[in-house]
Amino acid sequence: MSSKTTAAVVPTCPLCTTDGGRLVWRGRHLRLIRVVDTPEHPAFYRVIWNAHVAEFGDLDPAEAAECMAAVAVVESGLRTLGPDKINLASLGNMVPHLHWHVIARWSGDPHWPQPIWGGAPRRALPSELADTLTRALPALDQTLAAAFAERFEAQ
Amino acid sequence: MSSKTTAAVVPTCPLCTTDGGRLVWRGRHLRLIRVVDTPEHPAFYRVIWNAHVAEFGDLDPAEAAECMAAVAVVESGLRTLGPDKINLASLGNMVPHLHWHVIARWSGDPHWPQPIWGGAPRRALPSELADTLTRALPALDQTLAAAFAERFEAQ
Repeated sequence: MSSKTTAAVVPTCPLCTTDGGRLVWRGRHLRLIRVVDTPEHPAFYRVIWNAHVAEFGDLDPAEAAECMAAVAVVESGLRTLGPDKINLASLGNMVPHLHWHVIARWSGDPHWPQPIWGGAPRRALPSELADTLTRALPALDQTLAAAFAERFEAQ
Repeated sequence: MSSKTTAAVVPTCPLCTTDGGRLVWRGRHLRLIRVVDTPEHPAFYRVIWNAHVAEFGDLDPAEAAECMAAVAVVESGLRTLGPDKINLASLGNMVPHLHWHVIARWSGDPHWPQPIWGGAPRRALPSELADTLTRALPALDQTLAAAFAERFEAQ
């Protein structure tokens, strides 16, 4: 099933009715937001497919390629921050509208080495890292917005 | 950086030195294993990139496309079991050798609606679902092995 056949807005879906975070860039098929409601993991973006499809496999091959190219652009940008690992995930159990979490992880971060969903934080985000990211992320937003504008179809 | 340049076996890496689970199929670039050590989530496969690379972004575009095509084949197979959601993730905080988790989720499963890494199970896997999956998964292994053999380069 291609998303081209299921592009209706679902009124009860928060990713159909809101940006879903701090909007960095919006194109025809997808958008990029920065997640600002999990301050313990600040280097955290989501690539959100605009059409309401539940599963990655609902995309046709060209759409899937575009979606993962966007994830790769974000990953590449986050790696400039020097993380120890990148975590990628498409889960959607609570919001079944296709979105990819792209998260930079550090060995001293609150959930390391667990996934960020792995229960209560084990420690605070180190303040030096928090300060560094607070300074770096607005510039990364701009870099990613420019990279998306260059590569992906405009709205 | 392409994985073609970093294919050395790392002696301390469990995904360099073992299959990493019950081997379903192995090809030149990647392999498929079924995860059999998390019985609370039995419909769980991993697509493992054979070369030791840490990040999805370490693959070149053709490799990334092959890798995600493999993930999509597994997702499609798992959807024949009638799950409520598919979860996809590339994390690797503990084993930084590229592998994709592909997990079928049900609304009554032990961690629903949390990710499977979301702390202690909330409930047991319903016995009827467990029995159904125990019967279905060996056949799905064979279906997936055939699909991989048809689509991806042999060893």
